Amino acid sequence: MSAQAGECAGRAGDGIARWIAGVDIGGTNLRVGMVPFEGAPPAAVVSGPTRPHRDPAHVVARIVAMIRESMAEVGPDSVVGVGIGAPGPLDRHTGVVLETPNLGWRDVPLRDMAALEIGLPVVLDNDANCAAFGEWWLGAGRGSERLIGLTLGTGIGGGIVLGGEVYRGASDSAGEVGHMSVDFDGRPCACGSRGCVEAYASGPAIAARALEEIARGARSTLAARVERDPDGLTAEAVCIAAEAGDDYAIRVLDETARFLAVAVANLINFFNPDAIVIGGGVAAAGDLLFHPLRDEVDRRTFPSARRACRITPARLPDTAGIIGAAGIFKRATCGRV
Amino acid sequence: MSAQAGECAGRAGDGIARWIAGVDIGGTNLRVGMVPFEGAPPAAVVSGPTRPHRDPAHVVARIVAMIRESMAEVGPDSVVGVGIGAPGPLDRHTGVVLETPNLGWRDVPLRDMAALEIGLPVVLDNDANCAAFGEWWLGAGRGSERLIGLTLGTGIGGGIVLGGEVYRGASDSAGEVGHMSVDFDGRPCACGSRGCVEAYASGPAIAARALEEIARGARSTLAARVERDPDGLTAEAVCIAAEAGDDYAIRVLDETARFLAVAVANLINFFNPDAIVIGGGVAAAGDLLFHPLRDEVDRRTFPSARRACRITPARLPDTAGIIGAAGIFKRATCGRV
Repeated sequence: MSAQAGECAGRAGDGIARWIAGVDIGGTNLRVGMVPFEGAPPAAVVSGPTRPHRDPAHVVARIVAMIRESMAEVGPDSVVGVGIGAPGPLDRHTGVVLETPNLGWRDVPLRDMAALEIGLPVVLDNDANCAAFGEWWLGAGRGSERLIGLTLGTGIGGGIVLGGEVYRGASDSAGEVGHMSVDFDGRPCACGSRGCVEAYASGPAIAARALEEIARGARSTLAARVERDPDGLTAEAVCIAAEAGDDYAIRVLDETARFLAVAVANLINFFNPDAIVIGGGVAAAGDLLFHPLRDEVDRRTFPSARRACRITPARLPDTAGIIGAAGIFKRATCGRV
Repeated sequence: MSAQAGECAGRAGDGIARWIAGVDIGGTNLRVGMVPFEGAPPAAVVSGPTRPHRDPAHVVARIVAMIRESMAEVGPDSVVGVGIGAPGPLDRHTGVVLETPNLGWRDVPLRDMAALEIGLPVVLDNDANCAAFGEWWLGAGRGSERLIGLTLGTGIGGGIVLGGEVYRGASDSAGEVGHMSVDFDGRPCACGSRGCVEAYASGPAIAARALEEIARGARSTLAARVERDPDGLTAEAVCIAAEAGDDYAIRVLDETARFLAVAVANLINFFNPDAIVIGGGVAAAGDLLFHPLRDEVDRRTFPSARRACRITPARLPDTAGIIGAAGIFKRATCGRV
């Protein structure tokens, strides 16, 4: 897709500011916002549950309705296009979501479905790439030449931004940090491998590890909760208990940080990035996660490579996906952000 | 360093072919050869023991003598410069080898020492980068856009060639594949971390693992050898015994391949390269290493990323370092190879 020269200016000929719609399709929530063309936090953010059990046409119709609602606030004629971040794997070139376990979708031509409904050009990309690009463009990764973005959620997503562009690799699948094995004979992972960091440090994995120990008799305020409702033991509950001073919950987070640190150290030793930005629900644990993480990374990296890399929480936890999707639209159509 | 336009042609004005001297400083051997400017296997290769116990000035004098000997064969006036690959860490910009455990050097201004003696421009780079660049330029990695080169020797070196250039990272230390931990609580590594793939699959690590099991009573033709001379159990001896059909030696190589495969799979999932080229002494085991390696990588990678990446033995086992050092000289002075 290429744009007319005039389409790559932040303002139209009449001086009206231009916007790009950013869409973040999560397993739980849909989020839409209007991102100023020249780059700033989104206006008119609208969100709602994804309702993944409904068919794709229904979800697309809701996304389009949310885009229209959000556009109405900034003036529909000032919106030049739409960037959508969706869970993969997907084919950017054809705009088709190939398969999303979280949504139950298969071979959904999401880009064209949305473009047809909304009447604007649409660019589709992987959600982890969008989050990393958003943090690089306007968040904690600003100014980085070699950034790795991690999103700790239902899974562990990763994206690489190299020289201001998403690095995609040979088959568009680069950045799968979640499936870096840190224990060759460790916990089985849904991907078929063993010891993947996702099998230790994703939200569900943290909950599962905590539950296993409690079943073996670990003493914790979480034990009573599990007795009432075993499904209620989420990573969020572990974080809340840790913040309240529960020693067992603190230990679970500490171990989580150390597993994650092995992957982060491997990335630093191999890729020598200048920034690793960590977001997603689990990252909300803050210092309880980042302190032991940085300590363990220090022990496992070459000092010069370690010094060259800041390890930092995401600064746009709710909007990096929206901002990054809009930024990737701009990059794809204007050759720059 | 920049070159005159005329210096970047393969032939001088008088039609005489130009050459670049390539130097590969190994812990055991020095190798020097003359690489045709336009890229071809080296001529006039000279090699000799490194004798690392002698002081740096002595080693540099021997390198210079070897360069002169090799230059004499192609005509000294046709050599435009020298590329040197040395074990790191080193500072390319100042041309100083900072520290080399294998050679016992510290803060040796190798580039300027050599340039002063030989009277030609010299470029210094990391040996693993040179080996990877050599395989990319003229070896098994030709045509690759995203190559990772591994050298399995006394340590495990790694280099990345991205878009025809060595990818160096934020502090010039990218590519340290040897210190990718594949077992967070595993074997201690000299680097201070644990479970680094180098602690399992380097030459000395293979010998150490084999020796441990033999001490515990493993049945093998290697056992008699160990009884005669415990220091004689090298990785090479393990490979020779495996080729001769020794079941225990085959199992040691098989396990080595599986450790290595975890690191290789991690690289494929994260970096999505189109080629991983594996050289060095241990790679000489051939199919006994590569078959189980590829099988295990298949089990641990995303199919699309796996299909996009060939895993291949180095094609220039003895000369990749020479060729790559010369190529990096050309790249640094002419902006292309």
